[in-house]
Amino acid sequence: MSADPDAATSSGPIPDEAARLIALDWGTSAMRAYLLGENGRVLETCAEPWGIMHVPGGDFAKAFCAMVGPWRERAPGLPAIASGMIGSRQGWREAPYCPTPARLSDLAKSLTEIGTPDGPLFVVPGVAHQGDIPNVMRGEETEIFGALGRRPALAERSLLIHPGTHAKWVRIENGAIRDFATYMTGEVFAVLKEHSILGRPARDAAQSGKDARTDWDAFERGATTVRDGACGLWPLLFSARSLVLFDRLSAEASLDYLSGLLIGEEMRCALRSPDAAADGPLALIGNAVLNARYARALSLFGAPEPEILEGSAVAGLWRIAVEAGLVAVPSTSGAAGR
Amino acid sequence: MSADPDAATSSGPIPDEAARLIALDWGTSAMRAYLLGENGRVLETCAEPWGIMHVPGGDFAKAFCAMVGPWRERAPGLPAIASGMIGSRQGWREAPYCPTPARLSDLAKSLTEIGTPDGPLFVVPGVAHQGDIPNVMRGEETEIFGALGRRPALAERSLLIHPGTHAKWVRIENGAIRDFATYMTGEVFAVLKEHSILGRPARDAAQSGKDARTDWDAFERGATTVRDGACGLWPLLFSARSLVLFDRLSAEASLDYLSGLLIGEEMRCALRSPDAAADGPLALIGNAVLNARYARALSLFGAPEPEILEGSAVAGLWRIAVEAGLVAVPSTSGAAGR
Repeated sequence: MSADPDAATSSGPIPDEAARLIALDWGTSAMRAYLLGENGRVLETCAEPWGIMHVPGGDFAKAFCAMVGPWRERAPGLPAIASGMIGSRQGWREAPYCPTPARLSDLAKSLTEIGTPDGPLFVVPGVAHQGDIPNVMRGEETEIFGALGRRPALAERSLLIHPGTHAKWVRIENGAIRDFATYMTGEVFAVLKEHSILGRPARDAAQSGKDARTDWDAFERGATTVRDGACGLWPLLFSARSLVLFDRLSAEASLDYLSGLLIGEEMRCALRSPDAAADGPLALIGNAVLNARYARALSLFGAPEPEILEGSAVAGLWRIAVEAGLVAVPSTSGAAGR
Repeated sequence: MSADPDAATSSGPIPDEAARLIALDWGTSAMRAYLLGENGRVLETCAEPWGIMHVPGGDFAKAFCAMVGPWRERAPGLPAIASGMIGSRQGWREAPYCPTPARLSDLAKSLTEIGTPDGPLFVVPGVAHQGDIPNVMRGEETEIFGALGRRPALAERSLLIHPGTHAKWVRIENGAIRDFATYMTGEVFAVLKEHSILGRPARDAAQSGKDARTDWDAFERGATTVRDGACGLWPLLFSARSLVLFDRLSAEASLDYLSGLLIGEEMRCALRSPDAAADGPLALIGNAVLNARYARALSLFGAPEPEILEGSAVAGLWRIAVEAGLVAVPSTSGAAGR
């Protein structure tokens, strides 16, 4: 597992290995760059808080060259690939969505090329599913194919869950993204925490320096309250306030209770199919903190135990670059990034 | 109908009628004071943006005396009563909640007295319903008894809906508030509009000075989308963004669509009972703008046509004051405020 993201934070002296690819995970809040060697092995990393809304002077080219210039000086002509919101309408240049069903090869042949003084950058497209309502992802598709590369058993048929600001539940079939749903659980939690009355007790408690560790009992209480309610979240949301009013929930625990309510509602809706097993094995492919919350909630809703895989973006960027012919590999591309 | 709130905005020279009561509707964002004459007739009004979080210097007594002092100079000893968040923990003094079932007489005998340099002020308690989760109201109870005074036919058995920041669905039985549910629809809409990605297109459109009238088609589309979905709001919320991305919904219409989604979810949950008719006739008792939206949504969900009653706070304050013996009336208290 040479592209193991657990190694992605390592940095240090230049190894005695040829660099093969510059891979960028360029999102809304940060830009992370990886220098990859044979088989997608991470050689060096760097990161800046240059999310697409925070690029200095709005000059994407300058930010890109500042980041990767030193690598390209040492290895002229090194290919570069990026995924994430950098390819959105608000990013550097829009990389149009691939429709579902979307395979690795569909993404690889739809890269958007941006010319820069330091050479081209190829941007991975997002994926759109047009149903009764449209659904879109951008960045998750790369993590998905990274995860499928790391766990090929999931590629035939599986249900991948990517928790986050806009959580995705993605059905994989025959190696392709077949369809998916979006849950705004993360963003709704954030705005309620920061701006609604539900966040006030916890905001006050935080100012008084009280303990901010996860209260798993409160989280589970929130999730099971929604699970056992007659109609899900909506009539229960105010309980995150009223239970505190009557000292039946502590101010410190109220945000974890709220988190349980919201993630519980996501579970209630996403797992409503009577034959969830038909979707194949489950996997959680978000960050470690959210994966843990979702795993706990899945268990409360009686779902099969999920496989847990975090940080597959680098593996995905490597696989897409190989599939697109940006880097040549000795064996088949199917083994890349694993 | 001498306490008709339609008359509550009138102000002018002192009529040739004895003042009987000072009534205050003192909430989170504003303080409205009414000088009432015989039968609760509104003689004069004044208002200040002194909601409980915005009282100058946090000096409630000073604000109160500035507001009602001139009236009490002219009519020394005039009784004063207030309802709303002024009686909350964050207000002037906490007026403890009455438990359900709560009758007019329960509220009247539970007034909290605050002494002031200008004489006492009596504060109406809120109402609490302790079920699996607690529910509380403060201010709505006064409007409810005002509405029941104006429409006695609703007192036997009815379902009153008070749209607002925290919407209330209140079951009335034998003249009492039997139980109620809270939906945070208004507050969630406000924070999503101001702080989430769902509000961005409309915020941009507003900056460009585009039309801001209600788009009823978009509102109905949102409500019916939730009505016809397999699992309500949660998997559909992102459509308020993604439909705009694909030009299937205009930026200007997106907030009315979102409003339809959220109010639709409230309808879906609150009307889920197969025998909603058992709750008796429906009435909407919020402000005119929200009553109109809720009436439209109720119709889309096949609910019986509601009676529509706005602004019953003054009538409620009068009824409670009469019941409490703060003002004497020639006939029985049952006729007061009508």
